[in-house]
Amino acid sequence: MKKLFIGLLSIAFFSAKAQNLIQYVKPIVGTQRMGHTYPGATVPFGMVQLSPETDTISYEQNGKYNADVYKYCAGYQYDDKTIVGFSHTHFSGTGHSDLGDILIMPTVGKLKLNPGRADQPHSGYRSPFSHQNEKSEANYYKVKLDEYNILAEMTTSTRVGFHQYTFPKTDSAHVVLDMVAGIYNYPDKNVWTYLRVVNDTTVIGFRQTSGWARTRTQYFAISFSKPFIAHGFANYSSRVPYGGFWGRFDQRRNFPEIAGKQIKAYFDFKTYDGEKIKLKVALSPVSMEGALNNMCAEISGWDFNKVKADGQQQWEKELHKIEIQGSNETKENFYTALYHTLINPTVYMDVDGQYKGLDHNVHHADGFTNYTTFSLWDTYRALHPLFNIIEPERNADMVRSMLAHYQQSPEHFLPVWSNSANENWCMSGYHSVSVIADAVVKGNAPFDVNAALEACVTTARGRQYMNIGLYMDKGYIPDERDGNSVSSTLEYAFDDWCIAQMAKKLGNTAIYDEFSKRALNYKNVYNPATGFMHPRLADGSFRKKFDALTTIGQGFIEGNAWNYTLFAPQDAAGLIKLMGGNKRFVRYLDSLFTMHLPDKFFEETEDITRDGIIGNYVHGNEPSHHVAYLYNWTDKPWKTQERIRMILPKMYKPTPDGLGGNDDTGQMSAWYIFSSLGFYPVAPGSDQYAIGSPAVDGAVINLGKDKKLSIRVNNQSEKNVYVQKLLLNGKPINALFLSHADLINGGDLTFFMGPKHK
Amino acid sequence: MKKLFIGLLSIAFFSAKAQNLIQYVKPIVGTQRMGHTYPGATVPFGMVQLSPETDTISYEQNGKYNADVYKYCAGYQYDDKTIVGFSHTHFSGTGHSDLGDILIMPTVGKLKLNPGRADQPHSGYRSPFSHQNEKSEANYYKVKLDEYNILAEMTTSTRVGFHQYTFPKTDSAHVVLDMVAGIYNYPDKNVWTYLRVVNDTTVIGFRQTSGWARTRTQYFAISFSKPFIAHGFANYSSRVPYGGFWGRFDQRRNFPEIAGKQIKAYFDFKTYDGEKIKLKVALSPVSMEGALNNMCAEISGWDFNKVKADGQQQWEKELHKIEIQGSNETKENFYTALYHTLINPTVYMDVDGQYKGLDHNVHHADGFTNYTTFSLWDTYRALHPLFNIIEPERNADMVRSMLAHYQQSPEHFLPVWSNSANENWCMSGYHSVSVIADAVVKGNAPFDVNAALEACVTTARGRQYMNIGLYMDKGYIPDERDGNSVSSTLEYAFDDWCIAQMAKKLGNTAIYDEFSKRALNYKNVYNPATGFMHPRLADGSFRKKFDALTTIGQGFIEGNAWNYTLFAPQDAAGLIKLMGGNKRFVRYLDSLFTMHLPDKFFEETEDITRDGIIGNYVHGNEPSHHVAYLYNWTDKPWKTQERIRMILPKMYKPTPDGLGGNDDTGQMSAWYIFSSLGFYPVAPGSDQYAIGSPAVDGAVINLGKDKKLSIRVNNQSEKNVYVQKLLLNGKPINALFLSHADLINGGDLTFFMGPKHK
Repeated sequence: MKKLFIGLLSIAFFSAKAQNLIQYVKPIVGTQRMGHTYPGATVPFGMVQLSPETDTISYEQNGKYNADVYKYCAGYQYDDKTIVGFSHTHFSGTGHSDLGDILIMPTVGKLKLNPGRADQPHSGYRSPFSHQNEKSEANYYKVKLDEYNILAEMTTSTRVGFHQYTFPKTDSAHVVLDMVAGIYNYPDKNVWTYLRVVNDTTVIGFRQTSGWARTRTQYFAISFSKPFIAHGFANYSSRVPYGGFWGRFDQRRNFPEIAGKQIKAYFDFKTYDGEKIKLKVALSPVSMEGALNNMCAEISGWDFNKVKADGQQQWEKELHKIEIQGSNETKENFYTALYHTLINPTVYMDVDGQYKGLDHNVHHADGFTNYTTFSLWDTYRALHPLFNIIEPERNADMVRSMLAHYQQSPEHFLPVWSNSANENWCMSGYHSVSVIADAVVKGNAPFDVNAALEACVTTARGRQYMNIGLYMDKGYIPDERDGNSVSSTLEYAFDDWCIAQMAKKLGNTAIYDEFSKRALNYKNVYNPATGFMHPRLADGSFRKKFDALTTIGQGFIEGNAWNYTLFAPQDAAGLIKLMGGNKRFVRYLDSLFTMHLPDKFFEETEDITRDGIIGNYVHGNEPSHHVAYLYNWTDKPWKTQERIRMILPKMYKPTPDGLGGNDDTGQMSAWYIFSSLGFYPVAPGSDQYAIGSPAVDGAVINLGKDKKLSIRVNNQSEKNVYVQKLLLNGKPINALFLSHADLINGGDLTFFMGPKHK
Repeated sequence: MKKLFIGLLSIAFFSAKAQNLIQYVKPIVGTQRMGHTYPGATVPFGMVQLSPETDTISYEQNGKYNADVYKYCAGYQYDDKTIVGFSHTHFSGTGHSDLGDILIMPTVGKLKLNPGRADQPHSGYRSPFSHQNEKSEANYYKVKLDEYNILAEMTTSTRVGFHQYTFPKTDSAHVVLDMVAGIYNYPDKNVWTYLRVVNDTTVIGFRQTSGWARTRTQYFAISFSKPFIAHGFANYSSRVPYGGFWGRFDQRRNFPEIAGKQIKAYFDFKTYDGEKIKLKVALSPVSMEGALNNMCAEISGWDFNKVKADGQQQWEKELHKIEIQGSNETKENFYTALYHTLINPTVYMDVDGQYKGLDHNVHHADGFTNYTTFSLWDTYRALHPLFNIIEPERNADMVRSMLAHYQQSPEHFLPVWSNSANENWCMSGYHSVSVIADAVVKGNAPFDVNAALEACVTTARGRQYMNIGLYMDKGYIPDERDGNSVSSTLEYAFDDWCIAQMAKKLGNTAIYDEFSKRALNYKNVYNPATGFMHPRLADGSFRKKFDALTTIGQGFIEGNAWNYTLFAPQDAAGLIKLMGGNKRFVRYLDSLFTMHLPDKFFEETEDITRDGIIGNYVHGNEPSHHVAYLYNWTDKPWKTQERIRMILPKMYKPTPDGLGGNDDTGQMSAWYIFSSLGFYPVAPGSDQYAIGSPAVDGAVINLGKDKKLSIRVNNQSEKNVYVQKLLLNGKPINALFLSHADLINGGDLTFFMGPKHK
């Protein structure tokens, strides 16, 4: 490793003061183009994400599957001109879609139960809106619905969405509840819906879907602040079972219950001008009863402003875990990113501790909060490492949730991409083990570490899954057997190294040896002839047909060989040696960042916009997130500093189109947080952070129990991106790395920046 | 009322001895033609009814809806030549269909996952069988599957079905689990299915359907006595959500779980000649966990004969509640009928007391056993009155279950026809009130009687349901508003009388007055001009177009005006007066029993065979069940005795075709039990039984706590059908009626029979 030579610069005085930080949070960031974030209201890690839908592309509307479904992963696109309604569950920044449950829309005038089409004004209940009349804050969303002259406001608690609609004077105000609506609403996604009107202010029900989560039921309870004077149902199912008997009653009007595949309901009111009708919508993964309990436990009464303030207070508390100095734009970028990192994973448990398990039984979480929405291929990289610094208790509970998942999983497999008591197996690797190892290695492991190791090992030995058996037998996955043979081999090798590190920490030599060996399997797919990680056939030869720029069909997932060849974060030194040594490796990195990627290759990269690419470096997808830091292992570590400061402003802007790709449940944002603070966990599972170049003017990380890490950054500017010197508690750091202990014990970390590299 | 003049006859000595009574039970009775019983295994009131399907007419097989679905209400038709498999839930004797869950079929040779068609041998997994190789006992069913040379045997406990398959020597034995199969399997009946292979002997899952029960989930757990060497799934759903991700694994073979709308599975074995493979299949209304608990609690180990013996012992205990003397045929009729009365309602609760409520939440039954399968339009008449004599504790629990239903029902309505936590609103009236009133009036009410009265009154005042509001306002339901305006008016009036009787017993004068008045509403639909109960228009006039013989379109359900005109069991004397007095009334009754009903009218009577009718008296449907006893209110009471003895042998035979119509969850059989013992509860809700003519040679009713009612019948024969004299504890009974106290206190009831009426 190279030494960092440090000069002496003056230290600017920095002090963290209590500030209003949510003012810098802009949930609207990423809602334009590919960010797939949502502008609605949620509390940190909340079960409810109450947000407007501008479209969801349901079959009902368009008659056939529409590729735009990808565009509407989060239900909202900034460029759209109409709002369909407000639903209670949303993924933040994902590349696949689901959820959008329990859509509510307030209307006035003639009752409409279909959303209609955006290109056909007045064709349904949707309403035009404008961004001038829209406000999006942490845990608060407001919009004027122009069609109806209704002001819609919403806020949440962890398990309850709180709507406040200000109506004009009318004899025909309606609240439409559309259970047909949903995100990625292909035919048959709705498995069943049920609705019960308990009385004229209380409605309960469930929506059961088979989407990305295959077998999922969202229970809910709704409370209205004002009794509705009438209500009605519509069943859009093509066939109503035994309709003859049910037909004895008029179930459409003022009947207390309905069930079917495609149910909608409406609730009628008379309102005076400016009258506010409020709704509390509680969710539960367990039962309608659970939803009612959650509502009662979390929100009593009808004080919208109090609920909003309580939730915003939660945000202030979380955001204050890192107090930075910097320009307004830097703060907006930073706190919006921090906001986006604190949304997922989401709480998945009733207030009484009950939750639905992977085995579709109801379980009780003993002594922990159960979480879901684990997008682990993304989040193992920087999001969970960030949590080990600023959210250690939650991260430990997330690990406990993953271990419960493992126990309840029919496959006895740790989560891959799990949501709502379902595993969807999205992406590759078994990166739960990285999250667990990272927690163990960093000493944040108040769970049963031996059970955790056993879960990791069992998962990594799960021969029948994703060609792990082949990988174990041959040391790589043959190209003939797997479209992602190379990237999976690389990811398995990294995960195996994580297991080894965990075993080492726990003193299990046998496991350490076994998985240390497996960790080197990355070398088996490196082709010295091409200089790339390269699809390899079962006979040991490398595939003849190969294009290192192409993303599709080359053995990689969401990345090309140019990017993936650098994926051995567990052994950067070994990789450099493998690739021909320092000089060749620096040249390779330089080429990556500077070459021109022709459009035809860009178009394959899926999730990201043109801005999400620098040269051939694809920041909008995750496999390269560690790449800019690899210069630290060469004789040109200053190039890391340079690249980071190039990537940061290019990929993150405090504007609706400010994200270069899907935020990926916070991973993109977590990269921002680390990188703008000046260090990054290149290899989760180690206790090491690579030093980059801080983009803030200073920061205080509040570590709890009155411990703080003060990060002072002297002389930082757009041009002064090079680290001249680094002091930890006044002593020079002569390496390019910090340890977890350096950070977590608190103290002072002082960067001295300058315009030229050392 | 008329006096019964009694002569003196010698008394034959009768003594009840411990006998094997299940030898007389023939579950096969009613499986041919319209009985809709099933030949399989169950314990008294068991949750599991494990029985063969000979067909179910699924769409998959025939491509379109097939009217034969009615024929297969119980899944088995005696004339069929093939068996499809063995499923775990069946209605006994209903006129609509559902259930048939979790079909198991053992096979040998080439794996087939489709049942195939009966008319295309070897087209699927079904097997020919013959009645020579079939045995059907209480809680035991055996059949040889000719296609595979497999002997299939089955028995049950309350919540567990126990299969025993004796295989030939083969390397390719299979057990097929078909979750697509089901009774009344129209498209989209399967809402969702889930299956998890926990290990090589344990499988759990659920089948969620929308059938007669609209929102129903049947959870189950299966344990195999021998580990299967492989297993596989097939998903017959047209679309598999996110199949791309799931497709990364081969889920068809040896994968631990699957979910979808249309799932089948198979389990492979190698067997030696004569090897027995046993399966325990436990059900739960609550969860898969609940099913496993039920299995562990009810059956440990693999002793098929013990489980069979335990269940048969339960049957012996129940059957011994009435020990009769009579011919072998009489005993077969009697104990088969008694068997059929002790199947429904069925237990609907896990061993830990948890059950699914009408509100689709999980509840705990505190201090009672929760029951379902309430076919109350049928069973209020004689089945529940029978339970008040021989099953008082169970009947009280059934009332408690009905009250829980009421509490949990979104409509705040007592059950009408409820099953599996669903109300299907089948048939008419609110006859729960009759069941509750009967229990209260007869002093079998260890439940909250005031809460029960409140539930009855609320139900009877439920204005929006089934035109109760119109009925309350006008005293009858106008024909324009309801296709069953007359029969519903008559039934409501009867039910109202029941409420009045209950209120009287509880000292609630206001309710007594209100409902006593409503009880006379039957008079409002009597048309003196036609001499029939007659559809009446809103303006008070009677409908001009009217046919007293026609069942369809005349204002009645399952009956014509001729039969329904006699439906005022609460006020027989008043009815006689209304209809012109004693002489005219006797002539009316005589005509009913002796007139010729042309075929075209018979064909409308739905459920029943030609044998189910005597003249125009329709015994196969329930509205006339009290009619033969109405002579007791005239000067020709001996005609009751004559008619009863005519009906009994004509309508009940100990043969597969021995039932004249659907057994209707035991009501037809309960009529047999009462009538063959010599008395009948004409008006449940009173404590009075009308005396008929006993067809047994004697009986002992064991009333518990060492109380017995000995019924001695002297000189009874096919010709000696007339009661000459009746002694209760040695004292002459000079009325045509017995009170409940006469029976329930025990003692001696002695009939003296003769060939001529007195």
